[in-house]
Amino acid sequence: MTTGKQMILGMHLGNGYGSQSSAWRAPGVDPANYTSFDAQVRYAQAAERGKFAFLFLPDFLGEQADLTRESLMITLEPMMTLAAIARETKRIGLVATGSTTFNEPFNIARQFKALDVMSHGRAGWNAVTTSDPVAAANYGRAIAPRPERYQRAHETIQIAQALWGSWGRDAWVKDTKTGYFADPAKIQPVNLQGEYVASRGPLSIPPSEQGQPVIFSAGGGGNGAELAGRYASGVIGAVFTIEDSRNQREALREAARRAGRDPDEVKFFAGVMPAIGATKREALDRRVALGELATPARVPYLGAMLNLPATLNVSQLDEPLTPAQLAVASPSPFDPRSVRALEVAREGWTIRDILAHGVIDYHPTPVGTASVTADHMQEWFEAGACDGFWVSIDINEDGIDTFVEEVVPLLQERGLYHEDYEGTTLRDHLGAPAQYGLDPRIAAPAE
Amino acid sequence: MTTGKQMILGMHLGNGYGSQSSAWRAPGVDPANYTSFDAQVRYAQAAERGKFAFLFLPDFLGEQADLTRESLMITLEPMMTLAAIARETKRIGLVATGSTTFNEPFNIARQFKALDVMSHGRAGWNAVTTSDPVAAANYGRAIAPRPERYQRAHETIQIAQALWGSWGRDAWVKDTKTGYFADPAKIQPVNLQGEYVASRGPLSIPPSEQGQPVIFSAGGGGNGAELAGRYASGVIGAVFTIEDSRNQREALREAARRAGRDPDEVKFFAGVMPAIGATKREALDRRVALGELATPARVPYLGAMLNLPATLNVSQLDEPLTPAQLAVASPSPFDPRSVRALEVAREGWTIRDILAHGVIDYHPTPVGTASVTADHMQEWFEAGACDGFWVSIDINEDGIDTFVEEVVPLLQERGLYHEDYEGTTLRDHLGAPAQYGLDPRIAAPAE
Ligand SMILES: Cc1cc2nc3c(=O)[nH]c(=O)nc-3n(C[C@H](O)[C@H](O)[C@H](O)COP(=O)(O)O)c2cc1C
Ligand SMILES: Cc1cc2nc3c(=O)[nH]c(=O)nc-3n(C[C@H](O)[C@H](O)[C@H](O)COP(=O)(O)O)c2cc1C
Repeated sequence: MTTGKQMILGMHLGNGYGSQSSAWRAPGVDPANYTSFDAQVRYAQAAERGKFAFLFLPDFLGEQADLTRESLMITLEPMMTLAAIARETKRIGLVATGSTTFNEPFNIARQFKALDVMSHGRAGWNAVTTSDPVAAANYGRAIAPRPERYQRAHETIQIAQALWGSWGRDAWVKDTKTGYFADPAKIQPVNLQGEYVASRGPLSIPPSEQGQPVIFSAGGGGNGAELAGRYASGVIGAVFTIEDSRNQREALREAARRAGRDPDEVKFFAGVMPAIGATKREALDRRVALGELATPARVPYLGAMLNLPATLNVSQLDEPLTPAQLAVASPSPFDPRSVRALEVAREGWTIRDILAHGVIDYHPTPVGTASVTADHMQEWFEAGACDGFWVSIDINEDGIDTFVEEVVPLLQERGLYHEDYEGTTLRDHLGAPAQYGLDPRIAAPAE
Repeated sequence: MTTGKQMILGMHLGNGYGSQSSAWRAPGVDPANYTSFDAQVRYAQAAERGKFAFLFLPDFLGEQADLTRESLMITLEPMMTLAAIARETKRIGLVATGSTTFNEPFNIARQFKALDVMSHGRAGWNAVTTSDPVAAANYGRAIAPRPERYQRAHETIQIAQALWGSWGRDAWVKDTKTGYFADPAKIQPVNLQGEYVASRGPLSIPPSEQGQPVIFSAGGGGNGAELAGRYASGVIGAVFTIEDSRNQREALREAARRAGRDPDEVKFFAGVMPAIGATKREALDRRVALGELATPARVPYLGAMLNLPATLNVSQLDEPLTPAQLAVASPSPFDPRSVRALEVAREGWTIRDILAHGVIDYHPTPVGTASVTADHMQEWFEAGACDGFWVSIDINEDGIDTFVEEVVPLLQERGLYHEDYEGTTLRDHLGAPAQYGLDPRIAAPAE
């Protein structure tokens, strides 16, 4: 149990609609929002009213959706989106995903530090290794083997951090009386030469209010934990059960310890994708309406999750599983969401409603009134499964406000969530220690 | 003579201070403006009040100034700066410099098209080849030979343009009634494979109000003209005399003709860096005050320009050239600014005042009341030297307003400059033809 502490929240921002792929056509949503920076700013401001620590923008460099009926899931371009938001918000952190494989360290270091200065110390970089061959093809390449990608990731992050520190904290004299602009002795090249990337520097950007951007990470597996353990202050998790989340968090904390850091320096965020309504039925109906197009295609997938591939089909959409089906159903070991799916099926819901429970969505979906979501978050947090959540909203247009107006006050009443921002920078919001340049505790990556 | 036409103006934006390297310490200037996005937005809005067609942001990836007493000359990062400005201006075009050598085509295409959408059709990309070894070192590389850099530039621009067109103009159905989001048949890969760069695509960004960003170019020489002739709608020139400017403009127009384009599609912008005061003495005094620190170091340079290296020295700073010096002075053939320098010297100004005439600045400097600047611009424009100017202001804080309030009305009275924006996009402001995707008239670069 994590007593006395409070959870930290991040808000997922993507395509301008919401995290359900048919949110673009929901009532009250402008279907042109994919290109609307006004909409993104509005959602960011709503999350800021809820005192969220940060916005999290995923990024996939070769997102391939079938766009016939579903929208893309990511924003046009995360840095431009966050630049717009930076100017029109005051406190919320701004975390964009950037690939270590398909960016030059100098370019990524420069843009993120510029965003950090622009936002007065609120930028974070979710450094991902990118494993998608479709993304690689957009750069005329193939995906390199994992060891190479992770080696390059270590080098890219270290070079970026070194560049961030290359303009010394007090190098900028700017004294109009004496005429001294800067102290060149405090602005020095970094001269880092890795196996895959290199940079001379310096990067001519003075420190932001938080010094330099915060590193986030979202990779899984041993390599991912190792990377996060060394550099990350926040980790975006993909977990479906408390047990799994606790294990991932522990692995991450252990990796931080191995890197010589205090494990509390790395916060682990579990995903949550609430379905909120005045009643459970209303919460389900909101999802049913959204799922209208996608639902039939998902029935075979649900069948596979329940080990019923042959018998589950679309004709049964508005009926519950038969007693015969329930008797033989079992959770597929290949999908961590299967246990929950079977649980819901056993409660007797129709197949349409089982799917409306979000059992094959990307995150756990508490379904019902706001207190169901608050309960879910409390349970996970108190079980030590996470340090907070990244919240994915079905339809941003009204859903962020609902979360902020209904769930946030419950968490506050229960003492689980802050009443207001205590600091002004992303580092403050995360409780991340000060850092400028490389972390002296982190050894260079094994060569 | 270019009759009936009106000149087009661009405003140079750099470091947040102005184009004189000691502007950071001028009275009324906040010396912290290098990191102030508020200041950049304020200057952009001032230029917009003057109905400028575009802002032009140079970029050097390894800017190396001696920062002891002089500031950097460029913004922290041009895309972030323009993103901020995009949200807080309405009409002015936004042209950022981006290297074709040190950017991936997919990344640059994506960011510029996102900026274009964000600004409702006002983005331009000044595509430069980057020849500076210090810049290359920031990417762990050496500068490649010119043919390779230009081949890569052709490939990068073509891939970017193809990606811009890869989301078909009418691919985005977004019909909430039928549930069709997009027509995938109209969103197709580009599959371009160059010698140095390649991309598959598509790029998932719908058209902006101007379709796609406009290409600018700033390179000189035959390779530069060839690149600009094929792709550019605007060329940022560096010229010191009407004759030189006319020649460069003609070479550019000829290159456009060779590429199968109408030469009027490419606008050539000469630089101008006005020194404006209520009297000529006041205009000079503003420059004298700014030059306080830099002036002594410039005396030997002036000596070399006048072929007087041995006799011209700092002790003579507040005296004019002696008759003996004037008798033997001649313009150095190695610096196109020397003719003007000698002309000013012969007028009898002190060496301090000769330098205050801007004779070794980066652009021609008309010195005196606003009408002197207006006369200069009229003379160049009517001589067919250029299609307009990119204006560099000594101190942005008050200098942009001065230009807008004093020079602009004179140009308008003379019928040389528009009273207001006629269109809403950068393409409108430049009179550039519609384009989406590759220009079908431009053949692939010679392979
Ligand atoms: C919750 C979560 C979010 C992720 N978000 C992104 C993302 O936005 N962009 C991306 O390219 N990869 C993202 N990833 C993928 C990982 O960074 C990583 O590339 C992937 O797990 C493949 O692992 P590998 O690089 O070890 O092969 C995410 C992963 C997780 C678990
Ligand atoms: C007026 C003018 C402005 C320029 N601005 C930039 C700039 O902002 N950034 C840059 O890297 N190069 C700039 N250049 C340099 C050219 O793009 C080009 O790299 C340079 O002329 C070297 O030529 P080369 O590539 O043919 O060797 C500028 C050139 C001129 C004439």
